[in-house]
Amino acid sequence: MDKSKEDKKSCENSKTQKEKCENVIKCNEINHQNESDYSNNDEKCDHLSAQLPVPAIGVDVGGTLTKLVYFEPNDEDEPASEVEARVLKNIRRYLTKNSAYGKTGHRDIHLQMDNVEIHNKKGTLHFIRFPTAEMGSFLQLAKSKGMAKLLTTVCATGGGAFKFEEEFKREVNIRLKKFDELDALIKGILYADTQCKTECYYYENASDISLSQKARFDFSQPYPFILVNIGSGVSILAVRGANDYKRISGTSLGGGTFLGLCSLLTGCTTFEEAIQLATKGDHTKVDKLVRDIYGGDYERFGLPGSLVASSFGQMNSKERRVSVTREDLANATLVTITNNIGLIARMCAVNEKIDKVVFVGNFLRVNPISMKLLAFAMDYWSDHTLKALFLEHEGYFGCLGTILLT
Amino acid sequence: MDKSKEDKKSCENSKTQKEKCENVIKCNEINHQNESDYSNNDEKCDHLSAQLPVPAIGVDVGGTLTKLVYFEPNDEDEPASEVEARVLKNIRRYLTKNSAYGKTGHRDIHLQMDNVEIHNKKGTLHFIRFPTAEMGSFLQLAKSKGMAKLLTTVCATGGGAFKFEEEFKREVNIRLKKFDELDALIKGILYADTQCKTECYYYENASDISLSQKARFDFSQPYPFILVNIGSGVSILAVRGANDYKRISGTSLGGGTFLGLCSLLTGCTTFEEAIQLATKGDHTKVDKLVRDIYGGDYERFGLPGSLVASSFGQMNSKERRVSVTREDLANATLVTITNNIGLIARMCAVNEKIDKVVFVGNFLRVNPISMKLLAFAMDYWSDHTLKALFLEHEGYFGCLGTILLT
Repeated sequence: MDKSKEDKKSCENSKTQKEKCENVIKCNEINHQNESDYSNNDEKCDHLSAQLPVPAIGVDVGGTLTKLVYFEPNDEDEPASEVEARVLKNIRRYLTKNSAYGKTGHRDIHLQMDNVEIHNKKGTLHFIRFPTAEMGSFLQLAKSKGMAKLLTTVCATGGGAFKFEEEFKREVNIRLKKFDELDALIKGILYADTQCKTECYYYENASDISLSQKARFDFSQPYPFILVNIGSGVSILAVRGANDYKRISGTSLGGGTFLGLCSLLTGCTTFEEAIQLATKGDHTKVDKLVRDIYGGDYERFGLPGSLVASSFGQMNSKERRVSVTREDLANATLVTITNNIGLIARMCAVNEKIDKVVFVGNFLRVNPISMKLLAFAMDYWSDHTLKALFLEHEGYFGCLGTILLT
Repeated sequence: MDKSKEDKKSCENSKTQKEKCENVIKCNEINHQNESDYSNNDEKCDHLSAQLPVPAIGVDVGGTLTKLVYFEPNDEDEPASEVEARVLKNIRRYLTKNSAYGKTGHRDIHLQMDNVEIHNKKGTLHFIRFPTAEMGSFLQLAKSKGMAKLLTTVCATGGGAFKFEEEFKREVNIRLKKFDELDALIKGILYADTQCKTECYYYENASDISLSQKARFDFSQPYPFILVNIGSGVSILAVRGANDYKRISGTSLGGGTFLGLCSLLTGCTTFEEAIQLATKGDHTKVDKLVRDIYGGDYERFGLPGSLVASSFGQMNSKERRVSVTREDLANATLVTITNNIGLIARMCAVNEKIDKVVFVGNFLRVNPISMKLLAFAMDYWSDHTLKALFLEHEGYFGCLGTILLT
């Protein structure tokens, strides 16, 4: 929604890239790995050449959304056979020429990263998402496009990497090479920022939401920072180095809460619709503000009258319930969830004595209302000492990290 | 609901009581006070005797509920005239012989404190509540019962003490003597605990909600403690002494949010009904649990599969929306709001290095689900280092504090 043309990524390969691992997952690597959750996959390996470069695909199977990254090398290695070459070409064409897959899969073309380097190979990163509830359809699609024959392993993270492991094996005989989701998340973030000069941004004039607007932030000296990952729920990390981080807090009131509540309250069916409704609504018809209770500002604590004192606090009145609109309810839900995340993130930042707070996750997709609110909350309540930062690839860092960690 | 007979208060006067102020508000005091928000009330004072003890009434006008305390001295001072004596007697009889006032006012008889001492007078404290939205009806009632003629001043706190100040003056010519609500709150808590041996309690076996039960807690050495006041919204204080406290945090997701959301989601009309519904419901039909995402526990962070990963996270599915009950939705709302308060309170306790967390406010009335959840949350997530404490007079400390501070 706020993705204007200037946001479009066409990222140049960066000379500072530090990834020095191997390129793509090869069959013969499977037998050398030491992770206990892998078993042999000899049948398929026997069938395919040990040298065959399978498409490098990473998935992050979240509670609501599955995020997938596909690395398309500029120069494909020589395939072992004509059959494999044809399948590989078909997969490549299917993934890169479409922007929609089935009914619910989408490729975020504006996030595509061209001419980047991964494991000493140059190529293009494509970013695709679909609802985790559609995993069955995704696996059938993988079968129908021949991916299941060619792919032996997919790099995977997120809770669903555990939950769907058996299903991947049973349905398409694909192994999930699992990576810790926080390792992958941080790896993905650091990589994306080195590859994309415009990856990181903040909001100028954060203290006035009507004036605030995106501006580039130089994240080349990132540490330390608080990382707030807003998916279905929220995880909060303190990151002091590439391999020095800890999960310090989290809340179950996240993007899933926004969409779940919004669906119940407004009958909307998608995240995009919920955000659209929220954009047109007015939470002050739903919430009880400081001025509704005090008649004005609460001066002793410097709380302005316009501040929300009780989220949804007016909705115990039947008269008010019948007068609010779906849009008002959607806006109130968004403001409630966002401000709560902002409060908890701010407390974490203060406790850890860290002044940069990076917000990521798909809750922020097409959601400038929340980003501006978070930028405001960090700035206002900290007397301008905290800065909210955002990253263009919002929810894709986990899946990206898996192919970097391979 | 969980107010069984053994909870009934019949508190003995404590010799340790430290309140040494004057007894009741007298007309001649009005002209000596130095608070700028008071103006003269000479007309009424001229009419009444300067020596007349008016009924000592304190109100805490909150965003949702107004809490009122009436101190009934054992030995009334001699009234100045027969008319005043009759009015005073009528007021006393009306307030103390009824347990319901109009359609929405209630006296909490089980909280009555007998034979306590306030300002060197012994008497009984009566606790009454009514919705703040019914303030107009309350003022008309005060008129009809003759209170407005006799009362010149009411001790008041809460946001409504500001908001309704003009209405009190205009409608019934009563001045509100305003007190800071946090001063009043703490004064009321410390007083109640000295007067009532059974005021403070905790939950034994907090780590197993099915086994946890109320047990008395000796709060005679209270400091330091975290105070979490859950009204329409939530205020959190760090209290290190009777006059040494600071407001450290707060959230707009409080009791008003629970009732507002519950009203929207279930069509319930009262807090009692919302709690009744919640008692019969199952939030796991509404929330997305860790096991719904991971297929089991999330072992790396020691998060059990039964933990809520995303509140209301299942409600983005139409199939699940149509299969949940009103009771499930009420339970999910209660669990969501309670756990969020628990999280924020716990972060505050850890930051302030304080191990006692006292929860008060009318959100906890007839609400053992929340109290047990809070007790569990404090215990479980702190490795048994934090203790959740509760007080019998839940939401009445602010109004009580005003007559103590007079």
